[in-house]
Amino acid sequence: MLRQSSTTTDVIAPRQGLHDITRDIAGWVASQDIGSGLLTIFCRHTSASLLIQENADPDVQTDLDGFFQRLVPEGMDWLVHTTEGPDDMPAHIKASLLATSLSIPILNGRLALGTWQGVYVVEHRATPHRRTVALNFIGHIAEG
Amino acid sequence: MLRQSSTTTDVIAPRQGLHDITRDIAGWVASQDIGSGLLTIFCRHTSASLLIQENADPDVQTDLDGFFQRLVPEGMDWLVHTTEGPDDMPAHIKASLLATSLSIPILNGRLALGTWQGVYVVEHRATPHRRTVALNFIGHIAEG
Amino acid sequence: MLRQSSTTTDVIAPRQGLHDITRDIAGWVASQDIGSGLLTIFCRHTSASLLIQENADPDVQTDLDGFFQRLVPEGMDWLVHTTEGPDDMPAHIKASLLATSLSIPILNGRLALGTWQGVYVVEHRATPHRRTVALNFIGHIAEG
Repeated sequence: MLRQSSTTTDVIAPRQGLHDITRDIAGWVASQDIGSGLLTIFCRHTSASLLIQENADPDVQTDLDGFFQRLVPEGMDWLVHTTEGPDDMPAHIKASLLATSLSIPILNGRLALGTWQGVYVVEHRATPHRRTVALNFIGHIAEG
Repeated sequence: MLRQSSTTTDVIAPRQGLHDITRDIAGWVASQDIGSGLLTIFCRHTSASLLIQENADPDVQTDLDGFFQRLVPEGMDWLVHTTEGPDDMPAHIKASLLATSLSIPILNGRLALGTWQGVYVVEHRATPHRRTVALNFIGHIAEG
Repeated sequence: MLRQSSTTTDVIAPRQGLHDITRDIAGWVASQDIGSGLLTIFCRHTSASLLIQENADPDVQTDLDGFFQRLVPEGMDWLVHTTEGPDDMPAHIKASLLATSLSIPILNGRLALGTWQGVYVVEHRATPHRRTVALNFIGHIAEG
């Protein structure tokens, strides 16, 4: 029989860029006696995102950050929403380009991530932020 | 016991830009006696998108629109698909950069949106369009 | 009563660009006696993506490919992650801009795609690759 369960988890993002949450998510999945089903991750913020990307070479994260800083730089002089600081509207734009929700199948109790895939919260603001991520599982409980 | 239900809802997009559908979606969720689970929203079009973004300062929406008009302007002279008008291929490109589906956990009968999050249909075409959004809920019905 | 089922399917991407997998997905849905529910598609790679876009004029695919090659060209001289070839880091960036997971409602046994929507694997690498896509269905089985 199918079950669903939900939780929220907080992530401290000390600086702009990618923060690996794969272990936190896999830990929650393991704690739920999950057999197979679907995990959905949802970011409750408009200036941070979710991203699945390479977990091997940290240079990939550096370059991803470098690309988005160049694509959406601070100081674009046509911006109207500037009252929350020069990093705020670029953060909203980057959040629009990346994901707010992600769904990952679970097979035999494990996230069906590829070998090189990690799950990240991407912080778009320049200062440290606490970010809340909601998790939802729908599927079978593992057979004992 | 888990249930699933689905519906479709039409949105009239009178012009290019963001159109808030949070109230429509929350209304359907409320009408379903939903307890907790997962809501998925799906946009049945290739030149309109779904977006979760800030619902407070309308200048954020203006700037998001401004960014995407600059990133994907009309008149790029290398485009091949031009028969449906100068706004059509840029609309397909913007739709590729934004979301076609979004999933939001439901906790205690309410969408687990953050305080500043609204759900929008983003119209990429220059003329008014009717857009159809499919909604799917999987989860518990609220206990009476 | 709700059921869930999962599978994986391999796609051979012979070259950079969009590869239509709509028929493969619809075939699996049809084989499962699915009534209504939710299909989730997940790409197990960090240099390939999922995309729902127009299935009518192939020029749309040509132009989408042209846009992303211009937005994220090979040869950006500030990139650090270059050991896997000039097409590798641009591929990771494009994968970040497009989708890793997509969820599509199923109504009366059929994917609730719009008339002009096809489902594509987008290959971002320059050489042929085998890509694995995980599929998950949660919903009702069709009544006999």
